[in-house]
Amino acid sequence: MTDSFFDLALQEAKYAYDRDEVPVGAVIVCNEQVLVKTHNRKQAQKDGLAHAELLAIQEAQNSLNDWRLTECDIYVTLEPCVMCMGAIFHARFRRLIYGTPDYKWGGESLFNMLSEPKLNHHLDFTCLESSESAQLLTSFFKQKRQKQKKKNSC
Amino acid sequence: MTDSFFDLALQEAKYAYDRDEVPVGAVIVCNEQVLVKTHNRKQAQKDGLAHAELLAIQEAQNSLNDWRLTECDIYVTLEPCVMCMGAIFHARFRRLIYGTPDYKWGGESLFNMLSEPKLNHHLDFTCLESSESAQLLTSFFKQKRQKQKKKNSC
Repeated sequence: MTDSFFDLALQEAKYAYDRDEVPVGAVIVCNEQVLVKTHNRKQAQKDGLAHAELLAIQEAQNSLNDWRLTECDIYVTLEPCVMCMGAIFHARFRRLIYGTPDYKWGGESLFNMLSEPKLNHHLDFTCLESSESAQLLTSFFKQKRQKQKKKNSC
Repeated sequence: MTDSFFDLALQEAKYAYDRDEVPVGAVIVCNEQVLVKTHNRKQAQKDGLAHAELLAIQEAQNSLNDWRLTECDIYVTLEPCVMCMGAIFHARFRRLIYGTPDYKWGGESLFNMLSEPKLNHHLDFTCLESSESAQLLTSFFKQKRQKQKKKNSC
């Protein structure tokens, strides 16, 4: 099922792309059922912290009326940043599956957070090395730079 | 002015204590003026991510209509956890002043995040080693354990 849940997260990332948001999608799965699917909404919500993962976690906690998501897995198209990785630990997820590494902001890439014995929760994780997610991000930022170049040359 | 801004954060932590919330307060200061003061509201908002810092940052970004808080300082009674430290980096704060270290969850205590050269923002920081903030937290958790003990013995 991993592939189809991840495909849903990718679909969410594409929605974000089409809405001029950094294309990141997240899906939370509980008992093999999709509980939440959403995407980055920083522009739409005019909220610098409205990352896909935080929105998904808040919605899932609300829906289950429990801050502990111990039976849940979270699928994200991009490696969670330090902030979102912290939120994933706080919510006590069972498993994290992400598409492509984030060497600039990723909690695992920068600090090996997922294998830190001092944190009082541990979860399984998989990086799928998704070329589709990576290409979506590359294309988004390329398009942004081109728009900026055009603007500057006018 | 550091002391009086920190005192305001402590006052917020006390409000949290009185409302049965983990006593953490946060104040955001911009041009020597208090822009936001708030406290942890996890219970009140039934939101596991409603930490004082995230709430304060969202309110400040909203108030300034800008996700960049480059001219702002944030005062927090407890060292920000990994999640909140990530949010502090995202918001591009100028300075972080915190009361007491958090060896279990603190972004600096666990990962030296504040001196990590790979993160694309850097900010000044001070730990005030506030005994008042530390005592407030100790007293809160002691009281919680006593209540739990009483409950279990009934």
